[in-house]
Amino acid sequence: MADAVVTPWDVSGDVDYDKLIKEFGTKSLSDELLARLQKHTKDLHFMLRRKVFFSHRDLDWLLSKQEKGEQFVLYTGRGPSGHTHVGHMLPWILTKWLQDKFDTELYFQLTDDEKFLNSDKLSMEDTHNFAYENALDIIATGFNPKKTFIFSNQDYAKTMYNIALKVAKLTTFSTAKGVFGFNNSTNIGMTFFPAIQAAPCFLPTELKGKKTPVLIPAAIDQDPYWRITRDVADRLGYYKPAALHGRFLPGLQGPNSKMSASKPDSAIFTVDAPEVARKKIMKSFSGGRQTLKEHKEKGGDPDVDTSCQYLFQMFEEDDDKVTEVFRQFRAGDLTSGDVKGMLADKVEAFLKQHQKKREQAKKNLDKFLVKD
Amino acid sequence: MADAVVTPWDVSGDVDYDKLIKEFGTKSLSDELLARLQKHTKDLHFMLRRKVFFSHRDLDWLLSKQEKGEQFVLYTGRGPSGHTHVGHMLPWILTKWLQDKFDTELYFQLTDDEKFLNSDKLSMEDTHNFAYENALDIIATGFNPKKTFIFSNQDYAKTMYNIALKVAKLTTFSTAKGVFGFNNSTNIGMTFFPAIQAAPCFLPTELKGKKTPVLIPAAIDQDPYWRITRDVADRLGYYKPAALHGRFLPGLQGPNSKMSASKPDSAIFTVDAPEVARKKIMKSFSGGRQTLKEHKEKGGDPDVDTSCQYLFQMFEEDDDKVTEVFRQFRAGDLTSGDVKGMLADKVEAFLKQHQKKREQAKKNLDKFLVKD
Repeated sequence: MADAVVTPWDVSGDVDYDKLIKEFGTKSLSDELLARLQKHTKDLHFMLRRKVFFSHRDLDWLLSKQEKGEQFVLYTGRGPSGHTHVGHMLPWILTKWLQDKFDTELYFQLTDDEKFLNSDKLSMEDTHNFAYENALDIIATGFNPKKTFIFSNQDYAKTMYNIALKVAKLTTFSTAKGVFGFNNSTNIGMTFFPAIQAAPCFLPTELKGKKTPVLIPAAIDQDPYWRITRDVADRLGYYKPAALHGRFLPGLQGPNSKMSASKPDSAIFTVDAPEVARKKIMKSFSGGRQTLKEHKEKGGDPDVDTSCQYLFQMFEEDDDKVTEVFRQFRAGDLTSGDVKGMLADKVEAFLKQHQKKREQAKKNLDKFLVKD
Repeated sequence: MADAVVTPWDVSGDVDYDKLIKEFGTKSLSDELLARLQKHTKDLHFMLRRKVFFSHRDLDWLLSKQEKGEQFVLYTGRGPSGHTHVGHMLPWILTKWLQDKFDTELYFQLTDDEKFLNSDKLSMEDTHNFAYENALDIIATGFNPKKTFIFSNQDYAKTMYNIALKVAKLTTFSTAKGVFGFNNSTNIGMTFFPAIQAAPCFLPTELKGKKTPVLIPAAIDQDPYWRITRDVADRLGYYKPAALHGRFLPGLQGPNSKMSASKPDSAIFTVDAPEVARKKIMKSFSGGRQTLKEHKEKGGDPDVDTSCQYLFQMFEEDDDKVTEVFRQFRAGDLTSGDVKGMLADKVEAFLKQHQKKREQAKKNLDKFLVKD
């Protein structure tokens, strides 16, 4: 099997998360640290209990700051190259939980500049439009309108650029090349962009006029950005951002498949009609056996089964129920069709509710958006 | 003698302007083209008659557009790393003449982002403050307040960044490296910056909603930026900017000396007291002989004499007078002290008037500044 590739623009191959922790130089999310977090939050989100979020940078430091009365804020983002799919929403769900538990601010960056720079097809208007489409999904996730600041980089460019300049001045092309694999053919917008993605880590300190701890919940492919950011933070008089790293939700075609806007069947999009989503799930990759007879005899593999994984990572909150589904699927007592049906019920219900909230969000955009 | 170096950050050695035309791939400003320009302007500015502006890109094309009714606009800039000296003002004087003759708009970029990125000492606040100090000198030059738009890149970053993204997407690191000599140690702000300096070439088209010709009068060291800009213009649906290239006013220490804010005696700054400026001139490099006797016998060299050159390039409008000064200095009839005194009179008068206008400019900043 080919070695996995994990960069902000490409995740492919069989991702070994323990190996990534070593390669990226992050720390695994220990039970001790989760217990410490739980002192603040009372309960633990299932994505943390199940290590869907499995790695971190400086979460312990962040909690110490919090315990000393330095309220942290949250920062995450989205690259608006198309419609939102459920994989994008996975970290948002944990982010909302963190916002609720710590009653804290969230800064949400929509990188409609980078998605333009990095696309052969998308215009600035395209990525800007998708930024606003995606913002509806962000709002529908349920973030606190009083404490959530969503911005498109195109619309907030003055604020972003002026902070990014400070980051950029301390970041050589050589460093950016080493971290992101840039080469001589990379365009000069892309090589500058890490400074723009770093900017929101320092924005709260600028806005509040005091050093403010920042926690970034995001999929682990974004970690290279935080390396650059952490490299320069001290010298600029800011705290290094802390990070919580999530796994990737697999595409509907199986463990190493990608979700892509250009392949509608690869993912469940938030704008999919619920019955369309059901059909996609029923056609998705299964960890069951070739025939029903064989499945009943030998059982399936929940670790590669799309529906089992979707239930585990995102759609079934109840640990006992997930454990039972996995046990029965492994035993052959639940068929592929059974678990697909369970997931489809969950996803249909989720989409119906989400799409209602998404519609309402259109009226509330102004409460969330910040612009220059 | 060492080969001359001419880049936007370094001009040193003995500059051979004919050689630069070949190296940069520009065209010399021919008498025919000047005659064509004169059909529009009636007279010709002495900086054009004397080939202080000696090279161009597409000035002929620009005049054709103008003749077909497509009004061009002017764009120039200033890197605010310190106070303005008279060398900075040289191209502004021609730019004002062009604005008056063609009754056209002028876009004036203050690159307080780049001067921060490229300095070991200056903070963003420093370069921003200098941008506003320099703006006073720009206004004092006499530009039309109704048709002149001065902006600091820090303050106009949203507008600049959103146009720069389009330029950056089409410009590889390799191209920027080839044009500017960037290397792996260059910071990622500097490698992006050519896109920001290109942006005002396309801004008038964006603001007016129709393709608008742009003419850039500036010293020839800025030409590399227009190469990058012209490379991408067609593909983005803009006209290529035309350029008029000026020579450098030498430093007060002689033909290859530099003017620098860190060496007060190297240049006449617009904030210098007139009597201080006089003293600097009296101490400046002379093309005269070692003794008065030798000078009277053999004569001096006006081509290297600072005062002769300052009179020729900037401070004596009357061709006959300049010719006569050069002739007499060469013949030994005018001493170094004589021509220094002539220049000092001119410069004192210039500074007195300029400083009055500069003081008035403080009240008129709002009429000229644009911001996001």
